[in-house]
Amino acid sequence: MSDPSWRAAYPRVTFDKVRYADTDRQGHVNNAVFSTYLETGRVEFLYDPESPMYEDGTEFVIVSLKVHLEDEIHWPGRVEIGTRVARVGTSSITIEQGLFQDDRRAATAETVVVQIDGKTRKSAPLSRGTVARLEALKGP
Amino acid sequence: MSDPSWRAAYPRVTFDKVRYADTDRQGHVNNAVFSTYLETGRVEFLYDPESPMYEDGTEFVIVSLKVHLEDEIHWPGRVEIGTRVARVGTSSITIEQGLFQDDRRAATAETVVVQIDGKTRKSAPLSRGTVARLEALKGP
Amino acid sequence: MSDPSWRAAYPRVTFDKVRYADTDRQGHVNNAVFSTYLETGRVEFLYDPESPMYEDGTEFVIVSLKVHLEDEIHWPGRVEIGTRVARVGTSSITIEQGLFQDDRRAATAETVVVQIDGKTRKSAPLSRGTVARLEALKGP
Amino acid sequence: MSDPSWRAAYPRVTFDKVRYADTDRQGHVNNAVFSTYLETGRVEFLYDPESPMYEDGTEFVIVSLKVHLEDEIHWPGRVEIGTRVARVGTSSITIEQGLFQDDRRAATAETVVVQIDGKTRKSAPLSRGTVARLEALKGP
Repeated sequence: MSDPSWRAAYPRVTFDKVRYADTDRQGHVNNAVFSTYLETGRVEFLYDPESPMYEDGTEFVIVSLKVHLEDEIHWPGRVEIGTRVARVGTSSITIEQGLFQDDRRAATAETVVVQIDGKTRKSAPLSRGTVARLEALKGP
Repeated sequence: MSDPSWRAAYPRVTFDKVRYADTDRQGHVNNAVFSTYLETGRVEFLYDPESPMYEDGTEFVIVSLKVHLEDEIHWPGRVEIGTRVARVGTSSITIEQGLFQDDRRAATAETVVVQIDGKTRKSAPLSRGTVARLEALKGP
Repeated sequence: MSDPSWRAAYPRVTFDKVRYADTDRQGHVNNAVFSTYLETGRVEFLYDPESPMYEDGTEFVIVSLKVHLEDEIHWPGRVEIGTRVARVGTSSITIEQGLFQDDRRAATAETVVVQIDGKTRKSAPLSRGTVARLEALKGP
Repeated sequence: MSDPSWRAAYPRVTFDKVRYADTDRQGHVNNAVFSTYLETGRVEFLYDPESPMYEDGTEFVIVSLKVHLEDEIHWPGRVEIGTRVARVGTSSITIEQGLFQDDRRAATAETVVVQIDGKTRKSAPLSRGTVARLEALKGP
């Protein structure tokens, strides 16, 4: 089932090019590589050099990752990665993502990241400005 | 906190050697590589050439993967991967895993895999023999 | 030094998107990943689904790979991969490649691949048609 | 042909565990992963935390890599990586390596690395002490 309407559900859409080395002996893209595609969507959004989400002296750590795998991904081709903010906490962000190949959904995922102080390694509150920018990236 | 007692909770323990290429620009092992370590624990258990868990004409597909990340993994070193069966359904297996470095827990994970018919791609019931072997791999 | 004139030297140019996971603890793209980028250029050219270079019942194996590394590759960004045929033998092909980021050359490489019979695993002569298509991909 | 006598030719022997994700759709270990196995042999030798080869303020960069691929590597299993010093220059080291699975040679490689000053990025002479330690790692 191919349906391009998924794009409307994700304020940020980027892609990865599927590599030959992403495949495994089962002939399709290795399941663990799905986590790499999801990372591409997250880091382009959190570490965007033009407009990074983190404050000076802090960094993001992943607390949890849940992936539902629905279909295979194949070489050659691309994977589209849709990303949206689901919830914004004091220092945490819940991110929802979808992986699509040729408008066919291959996986959905939910990741929780927490901003921590780079030195103390304890959670560090998101600034008002970052919260506002994150709120703007919630889905419809 | 380093405590080797975790081994008692996992009937199967294997390892991966951390590779220099597993690290990323943050200096530690890349988060997506955790999924690869978890895969090592799963495939050695499901596809053990001596005693594979699948029936002829069937294969396993991953339905869901949940990972809780608790600590960093570093190069050089090894990752110990503990694996146990949590639940056995008609055609599904719920697997619980832990990743440890120097007896320090870095992550826990729950994966659901389903046995499917290689041709119809529909779920295929686990045989009695496989169910019995899986039951024997439940934790204490 | 950035100079787009390199494109004229390569009949085929494709790209890979640099992934966060491609970096290592030194902060730049891991050296071993250069081999993956080179593979992207080779497989798109040899296994192009529209017009594959191999004959039925044969496959290509790599015999040798020589890489000269000249500069670092960084995330985020893309790598352009230029590929041309240098020599065509009875059953072997010598391929020359260049890796570029922002028109800055990061590496050059020479790979020799040999067509083998899928069953006997012995070298299998390239057909006249394939030789002609390969000759057309020699550089200027 | 399996022959364990190769070990005598390499003063340093280490290993990598072959990962399921190292395989590709051709069923064997992806060719580009050979470069990762070679890196394992190099970094354990150059960046050994107990006795690193580099001086303070310097680092090693790879200048060239030549690999001859002779056989396939398969999952599951291990790859043994033999490493020896071939030549020691003013600031460069030529390293020869072999990859073996079950005492069957899968590849040989020659890598040239150069010590550079971390700030100026220009070549930095190896110290007398390092040269002596490198000379001791030449093959028989």
